[in-house]
Amino acid sequence: MARKSRKTKPSRLTHFDEAGRAQMVDVSAKPATERIAVASGHVTVARQTMRLIRAGQVKKGDVLSVAELAGIMGAKRTHELIPLCHPLALSALSVVLKPNLRQSRIDITATVKTTGPTGVEMEALTAVSVAALTVYDMCKAVDRGMVLGDIRLEHKSGGKSGTYERGR
Amino acid sequence: MARKSRKTKPSRLTHFDEAGRAQMVDVSAKPATERIAVASGHVTVARQTMRLIRAGQVKKGDVLSVAELAGIMGAKRTHELIPLCHPLALSALSVVLKPNLRQSRIDITATVKTTGPTGVEMEALTAVSVAALTVYDMCKAVDRGMVLGDIRLEHKSGGKSGTYERGR
Amino acid sequence: MARKSRKTKPSRLTHFDEAGRAQMVDVSAKPATERIAVASGHVTVARQTMRLIRAGQVKKGDVLSVAELAGIMGAKRTHELIPLCHPLALSALSVVLKPNLRQSRIDITATVKTTGPTGVEMEALTAVSVAALTVYDMCKAVDRGMVLGDIRLEHKSGGKSGTYERGR
Amino acid sequence: MARKSRKTKPSRLTHFDEAGRAQMVDVSAKPATERIAVASGHVTVARQTMRLIRAGQVKKGDVLSVAELAGIMGAKRTHELIPLCHPLALSALSVVLKPNLRQSRIDITATVKTTGPTGVEMEALTAVSVAALTVYDMCKAVDRGMVLGDIRLEHKSGGKSGTYERGR
Amino acid sequence: MARKSRKTKPSRLTHFDEAGRAQMVDVSAKPATERIAVASGHVTVARQTMRLIRAGQVKKGDVLSVAELAGIMGAKRTHELIPLCHPLALSALSVVLKPNLRQSRIDITATVKTTGPTGVEMEALTAVSVAALTVYDMCKAVDRGMVLGDIRLEHKSGGKSGTYERGR
Amino acid sequence: MARKSRKTKPSRLTHFDEAGRAQMVDVSAKPATERIAVASGHVTVARQTMRLIRAGQVKKGDVLSVAELAGIMGAKRTHELIPLCHPLALSALSVVLKPNLRQSRIDITATVKTTGPTGVEMEALTAVSVAALTVYDMCKAVDRGMVLGDIRLEHKSGGKSGTYERGR
Repeated sequence: MARKSRKTKPSRLTHFDEAGRAQMVDVSAKPATERIAVASGHVTVARQTMRLIRAGQVKKGDVLSVAELAGIMGAKRTHELIPLCHPLALSALSVVLKPNLRQSRIDITATVKTTGPTGVEMEALTAVSVAALTVYDMCKAVDRGMVLGDIRLEHKSGGKSGTYERGR
Repeated sequence: MARKSRKTKPSRLTHFDEAGRAQMVDVSAKPATERIAVASGHVTVARQTMRLIRAGQVKKGDVLSVAELAGIMGAKRTHELIPLCHPLALSALSVVLKPNLRQSRIDITATVKTTGPTGVEMEALTAVSVAALTVYDMCKAVDRGMVLGDIRLEHKSGGKSGTYERGR
Repeated sequence: MARKSRKTKPSRLTHFDEAGRAQMVDVSAKPATERIAVASGHVTVARQTMRLIRAGQVKKGDVLSVAELAGIMGAKRTHELIPLCHPLALSALSVVLKPNLRQSRIDITATVKTTGPTGVEMEALTAVSVAALTVYDMCKAVDRGMVLGDIRLEHKSGGKSGTYERGR
Repeated sequence: MARKSRKTKPSRLTHFDEAGRAQMVDVSAKPATERIAVASGHVTVARQTMRLIRAGQVKKGDVLSVAELAGIMGAKRTHELIPLCHPLALSALSVVLKPNLRQSRIDITATVKTTGPTGVEMEALTAVSVAALTVYDMCKAVDRGMVLGDIRLEHKSGGKSGTYERGR
Repeated sequence: MARKSRKTKPSRLTHFDEAGRAQMVDVSAKPATERIAVASGHVTVARQTMRLIRAGQVKKGDVLSVAELAGIMGAKRTHELIPLCHPLALSALSVVLKPNLRQSRIDITATVKTTGPTGVEMEALTAVSVAALTVYDMCKAVDRGMVLGDIRLEHKSGGKSGTYERGR
Repeated sequence: MARKSRKTKPSRLTHFDEAGRAQMVDVSAKPATERIAVASGHVTVARQTMRLIRAGQVKKGDVLSVAELAGIMGAKRTHELIPLCHPLALSALSVVLKPNLRQSRIDITATVKTTGPTGVEMEALTAVSVAALTVYDMCKAVDRGMVLGDIRLEHKSGGKSGTYERGR
């Protein structure tokens, strides 16, 4: 895990005021700049579930398209779900789900853009999470053992804290 | 992964009709029974992040309480987020976050109950996911490398498909 | 327009009290019975738009699947959109969009079920409307002249007011 | 149907990427300009329903005011209902419902303004649709045969695609 | 303040578990019974504001109707606003706003009914609050000094805790 | 009650057009400026309730933290609750609840900032109201006689109508 950005990090959690009270951080002094965030994650599924998902993809009943759409719609509601997130006007949003046969899982990537005073990391992570939950929902009748994992930020740019690139 | 329930599983994904069209499954013939679901997951954090979270817990600025509340509130909106989920009247909902020092992660468990014709697995998994996302949001200024992982169903009971208990 | 049900109709609008004040009608004395509603409508599109929609259907970029999903999700929010609608637990919900080549339009049908004290006509009509709006949104860059039309109740059964079947 | 704008239209549906995957179109390169959209539609009602609606207007129980308000509130939620719509800050929004006695219908017009990178056609069309659905809801106890029709864009201006004026 | 009900009250706050963690109280063992709650409150306004409100009532621009509708719609979202409230199917909901000339205020009363395992006190109080906020919003351009006050429960019946009647 | 700003006030309610129809006021010609609003209010509670609240604060089960968070989250939804409010991107939001032992009440203050064409008075007042309702919800099992009162604007600055400061 290598961080590309070398800005000094705050020594305390900024979502609390000095009395320890949760607050929405004041971003009024921050300029509106273009910001991008990419997040990823996956859903590990049984081999038989993977077969059903892929059958739907090529023929009918496409789980992955439904989950991509759910991820997009979920990301638009990030500020309603995450208590201290700022409401934001998003300028681009895409969610991609791909079957990873070797590891028997569905790989998910979400990319979000905004022009605003705060970043869109939470929107990207929420898109991945909601897409993953939707895969679970649509396949749970055949596979309750699925696991959502490795949901994380891959990349972020724009804003005062600079660029973050997840190491490999 | 051992399944305790021995019901026959459907051979196709029930969220699609015979033409491959997504649909909300018809539950009108199912009786309203008491149903419980337990889900779990965790957020892996840097050692320094764990210190900040624990400092807030004992003193002020409690990340874990905020995330527990977000998980509860998020679970109530499951049917808005997950396209084919039925709206449900939930009868109990709790979310517990605990620091796991040895593995430097926050462990999350959600328990949901309803009396209705469908289960609450998705509500429990959504509660865990939203709580995990909230931990990420509140600590991201100090730690962008956090990872949400192992979000999964631990237990489910009630309903025709019987009891499911995740194996160890 | 022939009505199959022969119940006496109220002589005033029941959504207002005697002082003319809007209210959510009291349904507490009504028994919970199974209720079904079917609504329909269509979006008239240019010939070239129809070609693009059909190309997506057979290959990629399926407008109709997205709109079906939007209709389902929109129906779940009927009580938030329509001021005096009761919140309801829906037990089944499907939305079907079909290209009607002869009339160059997309035909939409929504079917909704509940077991409750009020009907689901509004949910079915909302599903059709949101699906139709979604078709418009996805094709508007190539065709701003599309028209949403003939959104209406086709069938309703269950409840004190009996069965309604739209005449031909 | 005459189009006043003479811009070249895209040859494919922009809401899908090259792999046919639904996406929220990237508007980050588009400047924020003032944009206006006007949409219209109507609800055809039985003569007796029209009498009840008009009685409420002059005296009490005003269906049209309730529907106008519902249209305004519904338009603010367009991006939640329509999967690929961008969330937008609206700067003006009005919905007008008028009884059209000759054709026994309620005529609806919605006008929406924003200063932003995308248009507000969907907001105007959603306002009309939700207002129309609300008329249906409030009169359905006396008239299940009402029909929502001719919901369409009348005018749009601002943005790269120029002005659109519906022909007569 | 006299309480009519003589049930023993809990000695601790039931919305927390024994570890002090917020939770949605388990109501799965409680039977679904009919429950009613009535709440009231008022908005104190300047004399000139009262004149404008009353002018709108008799002629046009009716603040009170808009606020009544907002109260009804707001009450349906109580469980989204109040973190530990259970989602409920409401069976009746009315909000009444009346000008009180002598005290230069708008008096508000909300009545809510449900058949369920928990009460609707919060729905009634939320209806009053949202209606009051709406009066403020609609008159704030002429009167920023308005005050919302005395928002309280007047009556509650149904459920294990019995009937509550506010003393005079 | 002294007003510090001396701007001329409108002689009619701006939320209605000349025909008395409710509308979202056109703010498209107003420049985006920084705006702040502060609102306050309180919940009067029984002495015993105050003891329980304070016990939770120092030890566990902190009503005030939950209510602060609910106020923040509620404020983000102001435009959904208040029919004619504009959706706004908020840049800062904090809610503070403090026990006032002498008067046996919980004092609430909310501060909201935006950079936009309209003010955030309604967001501040909504934050106070939702926080107050949450206190009621969490303590209602022990005290149904609590009263929400004196919810009002304390300060507002930015925008054409200038600064407002509530007199003492």
